[in-house]
Amino acid sequence: MPYVNIKVTNEGVSPEQKRRLIRGVTQLLVDTLNKDPKTTFVVIDEVSTDNWGIGYKSVTELRA
Amino acid sequence: MPYVNIKVTNEGVSPEQKRRLIRGVTQLLVDTLNKDPKTTFVVIDEVSTDNWGIGYKSVTELRA
Amino acid sequence: MPYVNIKVTNEGVSPEQKRRLIRGVTQLLVDTLNKDPKTTFVVIDEVSTDNWGIGYKSVTELRA
Amino acid sequence: MPYVNIKVTNEGVSPEQKRRLIRGVTQLLVDTLNKDPKTTFVVIDEVSTDNWGIGYKSVTELRA
Amino acid sequence: MPYVNIKVTNEGVSPEQKRRLIRGVTQLLVDTLNKDPKTTFVVIDEVSTDNWGIGYKSVTELRA
Amino acid sequence: MPYVNIKVTNEGVSPEQKRRLIRGVTQLLVDTLNKDPKTTFVVIDEVSTDNWGIGYKSVTELRA
Repeated sequence: MPYVNIKVTNEGVSPEQKRRLIRGVTQLLVDTLNKDPKTTFVVIDEVSTDNWGIGYKSVTELRA
Repeated sequence: MPYVNIKVTNEGVSPEQKRRLIRGVTQLLVDTLNKDPKTTFVVIDEVSTDNWGIGYKSVTELRA
Repeated sequence: MPYVNIKVTNEGVSPEQKRRLIRGVTQLLVDTLNKDPKTTFVVIDEVSTDNWGIGYKSVTELRA
Repeated sequence: MPYVNIKVTNEGVSPEQKRRLIRGVTQLLVDTLNKDPKTTFVVIDEVSTDNWGIGYKSVTELRA
Repeated sequence: MPYVNIKVTNEGVSPEQKRRLIRGVTQLLVDTLNKDPKTTFVVIDEVSTDNWGIGYKSVTELRA
Repeated sequence: MPYVNIKVTNEGVSPEQKRRLIRGVTQLLVDTLNKDPKTTFVVIDEVSTDNWGIGYKSVTELRA
């Protein structure tokens, strides 16, 4: 019964890309740890570039 | 000083239902662990059905 | 399919108290939002008192 | 390679305040633990006042 | 610069399985969203079976 | 009433360093957002180097 949380910046992730993330992570847990996909949760958080920092700067600043 | 995070899909949770979750979880921590409600935090995250996966599929696909 | 994370300090929470937290939170989600208990996850994190701070101080300092 | 998550209520945090949080937390990790800022992540979550509870009440109720 | 958190029960995950999870999730983010692996973090949490609940019960009870 | 979670690898963070992190983050939230320190929580998670990945590798591999 794994729980996986994926955080990425909200820069245009499409519904199809989200489905690929969900399928891919679930398959990885089945293949690696023999987990049951029926109780494998994947939650994707899309974070504003103002709200994500790396190297002292927000991603908004880095993209500017 | 507990911290509780509740994640649910964003399918129409009303402000009154949120207040019931906050009161209920806080009471549970008071009753079970004798915690102080004044420093008991409850944070509710509402997640898009595109962004929540279970059993290889997004909840959007499961609801379709 | 809710996911609930409860963080408390690791000050002697017993297995029975953990079971009461799990049952209580699950029942609250069933009663309030009509969620399915079979896909309701509760994860309890017990945090060292050195690693939890409030009001500028660690809980270890507050308990001293 | 630290990861820091800051959760606050969404009560008008400006982009400049977010940049100050990102810079300040990153500097603290450099100064205290000698971490590399290039792999120090800071993620800020702004939470609706309906969705944050303390002392049995939502922040919306407390502000009313 | 994604951040991925994988939570599983602490039932004997080997270092090699952890490396497979790290490589697999990172590759998925590269393939799906064209992310830079150098700033892709994966953090694995292993949770005691007493501390994980599903369907009103702890995993310890479910395994018994 | 902010909540801050700091995740670092468990490579010998001392109690004094933890206190400095708690004080520093709390002060930053007071100075930047005028938050009340009495309801500012800081939780530090120390993660095994086997369980933290970056650039396809665990930190254990990177340190070797």
